[in-house]
Amino acid sequence: MKLEEIGGQPCSVARALSVIGDGWSLMLIRDAFYGRTRFSEFVAHSGAQKTVVSDRLKRLVADGVFARVEHPDHPGRPEYRLTTMGEDLAHVLLALSAWGDRWLDKGEGAPIRIVHRACGHDAGPRIVCGHCGGELDAGNLRAEAGPGFPVDGPAIFGGHR
Amino acid sequence: MKLEEIGGQPCSVARALSVIGDGWSLMLIRDAFYGRTRFSEFVAHSGAQKTVVSDRLKRLVADGVFARVEHPDHPGRPEYRLTTMGEDLAHVLLALSAWGDRWLDKGEGAPIRIVHRACGHDAGPRIVCGHCGGELDAGNLRAEAGPGFPVDGPAIFGGHR
Repeated sequence: MKLEEIGGQPCSVARALSVIGDGWSLMLIRDAFYGRTRFSEFVAHSGAQKTVVSDRLKRLVADGVFARVEHPDHPGRPEYRLTTMGEDLAHVLLALSAWGDRWLDKGEGAPIRIVHRACGHDAGPRIVCGHCGGELDAGNLRAEAGPGFPVDGPAIFGGHR
Repeated sequence: MKLEEIGGQPCSVARALSVIGDGWSLMLIRDAFYGRTRFSEFVAHSGAQKTVVSDRLKRLVADGVFARVEHPDHPGRPEYRLTTMGEDLAHVLLALSAWGDRWLDKGEGAPIRIVHRACGHDAGPRIVCGHCGGELDAGNLRAEAGPGFPVDGPAIFGGHR
């Protein structure tokens, strides 16, 4: 099976990965959050080869994560900008960044500070329950079938059936 | 450049993706959160081919995300369990799942409910500032050089230099 095909599973992680699960796609999305918009900038900063950047941008545009727009002053020079759907990946990038800060900083501290502009301090993201506000971690979560889980769905997660 | 090599960039997103950025790796980590521990279970549920599962598990063990342990009652039958470093990816998976719920639910609602066991309600994760508790999103964040950013580092993000 190809990675693009796992979106058929009734699981939002699998569906998300079928769209943005390729590491180079996430690098291009990172670069967009860092302000890059042009093909040449994505090539220069992501580390991906031109053919890979071209292929991933095309796919991410088709899936609605990026919009390809013409620069008004430079017709024929396309720019790639995150759509609302793409900007909504900020939380995925924040979680990846926080994990990298904690486990892969080589003892040197975070290479990049993410600042919460509203308060001016390190964002140091916390992931909390939308209901009670308590911290969420691997030990206090449970997965069960949701409203969109098919009646005859596969045994996706342990303990469900 | 190979995806494993982007970890040289002074950016925790790149470093995280150099370890877990391959979509199949994240599928195996998802399956571990869903309770899978055995090679055959990862093959059955992830959708990845055996050779891919074998390769990714080996790499994730080498990088410290999974531990390979012998089942006490079944010597010679290895199990793959998330380490503390691996379990700390819960936030990445939660963010991916929430994004998939919002954008890829096909109008049917979330296929899987993530329940916060402490309060018994949908976790519906919110990502908040560790300092002020305000919601974090793409519009209110700024990246700047952190303590681990090299003095002669590359222009990783826009607006820095």
